[in-house]
Amino acid sequence: MICLPRSELLKNVAKFFGEFAATAVLVYLGCMGCVNSSSIINSPLQCSLTFGFVVLICIQCFGCISGAHLNPAVTLASFIYELISWQMAILYFVAQILGGSIGYGLLVASMPKNMICNSLTPMGACVTSVASNITLWQAVIIEFLLTSILICVCCGVWDLRNADVQDSVPIRFGLTVSCIGIVAGQLTGASMNPVRSFAPALWNNSWEDHWIYWVAPLTSSLVTSIAYKYGFRSKPENPKILGITQP
Amino acid sequence: MICLPRSELLKNVAKFFGEFAATAVLVYLGCMGCVNSSSIINSPLQCSLTFGFVVLICIQCFGCISGAHLNPAVTLASFIYELISWQMAILYFVAQILGGSIGYGLLVASMPKNMICNSLTPMGACVTSVASNITLWQAVIIEFLLTSILICVCCGVWDLRNADVQDSVPIRFGLTVSCIGIVAGQLTGASMNPVRSFAPALWNNSWEDHWIYWVAPLTSSLVTSIAYKYGFRSKPENPKILGITQP
Amino acid sequence: MICLPRSELLKNVAKFFGEFAATAVLVYLGCMGCVNSSSIINSPLQCSLTFGFVVLICIQCFGCISGAHLNPAVTLASFIYELISWQMAILYFVAQILGGSIGYGLLVASMPKNMICNSLTPMGACVTSVASNITLWQAVIIEFLLTSILICVCCGVWDLRNADVQDSVPIRFGLTVSCIGIVAGQLTGASMNPVRSFAPALWNNSWEDHWIYWVAPLTSSLVTSIAYKYGFRSKPENPKILGITQP
Amino acid sequence: MICLPRSELLKNVAKFFGEFAATAVLVYLGCMGCVNSSSIINSPLQCSLTFGFVVLICIQCFGCISGAHLNPAVTLASFIYELISWQMAILYFVAQILGGSIGYGLLVASMPKNMICNSLTPMGACVTSVASNITLWQAVIIEFLLTSILICVCCGVWDLRNADVQDSVPIRFGLTVSCIGIVAGQLTGASMNPVRSFAPALWNNSWEDHWIYWVAPLTSSLVTSIAYKYGFRSKPENPKILGITQP
Repeated sequence: MICLPRSELLKNVAKFFGEFAATAVLVYLGCMGCVNSSSIINSPLQCSLTFGFVVLICIQCFGCISGAHLNPAVTLASFIYELISWQMAILYFVAQILGGSIGYGLLVASMPKNMICNSLTPMGACVTSVASNITLWQAVIIEFLLTSILICVCCGVWDLRNADVQDSVPIRFGLTVSCIGIVAGQLTGASMNPVRSFAPALWNNSWEDHWIYWVAPLTSSLVTSIAYKYGFRSKPENPKILGITQP
Repeated sequence: MICLPRSELLKNVAKFFGEFAATAVLVYLGCMGCVNSSSIINSPLQCSLTFGFVVLICIQCFGCISGAHLNPAVTLASFIYELISWQMAILYFVAQILGGSIGYGLLVASMPKNMICNSLTPMGACVTSVASNITLWQAVIIEFLLTSILICVCCGVWDLRNADVQDSVPIRFGLTVSCIGIVAGQLTGASMNPVRSFAPALWNNSWEDHWIYWVAPLTSSLVTSIAYKYGFRSKPENPKILGITQP
Repeated sequence: MICLPRSELLKNVAKFFGEFAATAVLVYLGCMGCVNSSSIINSPLQCSLTFGFVVLICIQCFGCISGAHLNPAVTLASFIYELISWQMAILYFVAQILGGSIGYGLLVASMPKNMICNSLTPMGACVTSVASNITLWQAVIIEFLLTSILICVCCGVWDLRNADVQDSVPIRFGLTVSCIGIVAGQLTGASMNPVRSFAPALWNNSWEDHWIYWVAPLTSSLVTSIAYKYGFRSKPENPKILGITQP
Repeated sequence: MICLPRSELLKNVAKFFGEFAATAVLVYLGCMGCVNSSSIINSPLQCSLTFGFVVLICIQCFGCISGAHLNPAVTLASFIYELISWQMAILYFVAQILGGSIGYGLLVASMPKNMICNSLTPMGACVTSVASNITLWQAVIIEFLLTSILICVCCGVWDLRNADVQDSVPIRFGLTVSCIGIVAGQLTGASMNPVRSFAPALWNNSWEDHWIYWVAPLTSSLVTSIAYKYGFRSKPENPKILGITQP
């Protein structure tokens, strides 16, 4: 990477900070919308709805810079689709971990402590956990299938046949995340994103069932993106169109 | 069909599996958002809202592969519009039946039994039924008119005059289904889709008034698509534009 | 009009029936979403939200045929913008009156009588009326200003500078109507549309304060469209672009 | 400015009145959706949702005329991005102050006094204030970060790499404002806009903590737009594309 021309290097630095800022916004704003305390109530519906719109905001703000993956599972799928090199994929992962952690830190700084951790959210605001009435295996199945749907949305957006319908992509992504959150938020938190689960867990030191939010999304992303790539992806008939792939 | 060139055959296989996966996602995610139990409450508004967004997700994921009909009534209208051959229409129907059934099966695997069938949903989660305060004939009229509106939306999307405003089609379709669901979900379930009604009925063995959800949508689709085709459809002035028709 | 060439005449007949069907859908579906009875509750928020989405559906279905005015106030503004002849404007008005009335008739056929008129909606479902805590003059001011905003949205859509951002117009219109309905639905019904107020009033014989819903929207449309036309409308620099005007 | 050619001068007058009207609509309609009284209840969710859609309406109506900044913080960022001269920036600010004040005046004229100021909203409808459970510094941090996110959305929209995805910009902006309002409306009012806070404060003579809504948004806009400009903004490779910048 040291041998890169200077302009290319600068672009990659911008991508790193873009992904960092995007993930920070995701966790700061998304988790602020899920805070519950005696004075401020955010219903599960409201929390899921806003989380999706926060994804819309992140894509709108930083999509043109880094692609606004926001999620290691998306970065993994992007790598399998050969839209990103493995070096950049690792850089993105670092940016996501740092961005998510600092985003949650800003949330802690913006609010009194008793709004982050109280009797309504004993494990801490925005920590994803498995509902008591489903088994761990069911939680793994749910997170696996939800992430699979999310990755299918990504593959659909990346498909060459959709190259000229990119205008409302941030809205479609946002509503996708809102929808999945409303549907399954009360079961597993509908995380689909290791970093989004990691940041609140780190600050609140709440690691119960935390492994699920790494294992299920990442294996799901691997399986789904390979299946879509070899089963459904369109092959460019005209090699020139290849240049339209996402940044 | 055996005489098709190999690349064409592969494309049709991809279409079959695309339609299969799309319908599976529709039933899995859509019905998960309508589960009601003592621990998890999904209001009718919430359930209808998410069902529409699930349609958005299905079109975004698989629209570029199979068109994401998700519904035999849409496939029938598509056949009348000569956008699909009768052989492919039958294949789509099989894919929808299989996809819907497997989607509901995955839902059953993801949840404890008492969340699928309990005192709040005695017939089973997501089973469509006629409200007690309307007559069967009124239910038939409502399902007929709702499907008619849905098919008009399809005909609008397929119309050549709208060929260059396809970007937000998944959102417009999703909001259409959400809207119709919010309006009439409490009356007839606002199914408009035999397969969406069939899958929960099969798994819960709940066949009361089930014929309505086959008769009304299919006759409505037939009547509406013929009426729109001969009354409103634009005739291409330039034969070259003909190629823009949907996949 | 008798001297029109046959193809032009057929197009105008299609426009008439398109506008007729669009207004019928508006009143049927929109008013069904506002029914309130002991068994089915539609909150004001829900009712306004769906009314906007119904507008989206109408534009999506029939926008490419008749422009889906749905509203004499919009037809009047369209006439002042010289997008429609006075003969067609009258024809559109007739289509809207007939479509609205038949749409509400279908609603009456779809439901038991006690869901249309009961103690919760003593004047009849979907009849617009003035809240008891505002004066009639305030109601006129509110309906005037709301219609003015609606007509500004129309003028914005018709403006040549927006000619290439037409894709999400149905969604933007739908959300506009939803928003205005949520804001002012509890004050005046947020009708902005004489025909949408006329159809329920006709079937329920409820004419209290009905004149407001004719006087305020129509005068507002007249004033606003003239003001926007001479104050803000872009003049085509290249006369060729003139052809882009709405159907 | 006196030396401007007449057509340019007329355009600037139109911009002034466009910005004036846009801000008047923002405050009139947005604040009407936040009125709370014994007879009309607007929940915080509903109020925030509509405020975002009102932004959508303003951009749709007047975006093609003045850009519909609606907000001195956006005008400041626009000036730093060299999309507007300092003379026009001052003119825009005057238009926003006047428009906001007259918009709130129309609201006062549309409603009885006891709906504007009552026991539920003792400081007056739509006045932004700091929740009792957070400190003033936390309020400043929150308003600073929220405005920063809003300005990032603007910079994303203005970026040359997004020049061809402008269609759904009003929707994306609207949902952004809705989302931020739902998330933080109960904490600081999620104003992000000095003028939107000024107009209700002026009419209700409620100036408590009012300085926050000037200091935080304006400093945030300054810092964020400079950071985005030098860190992330794309440099046009082809000087011809420069002409695509916003009006």
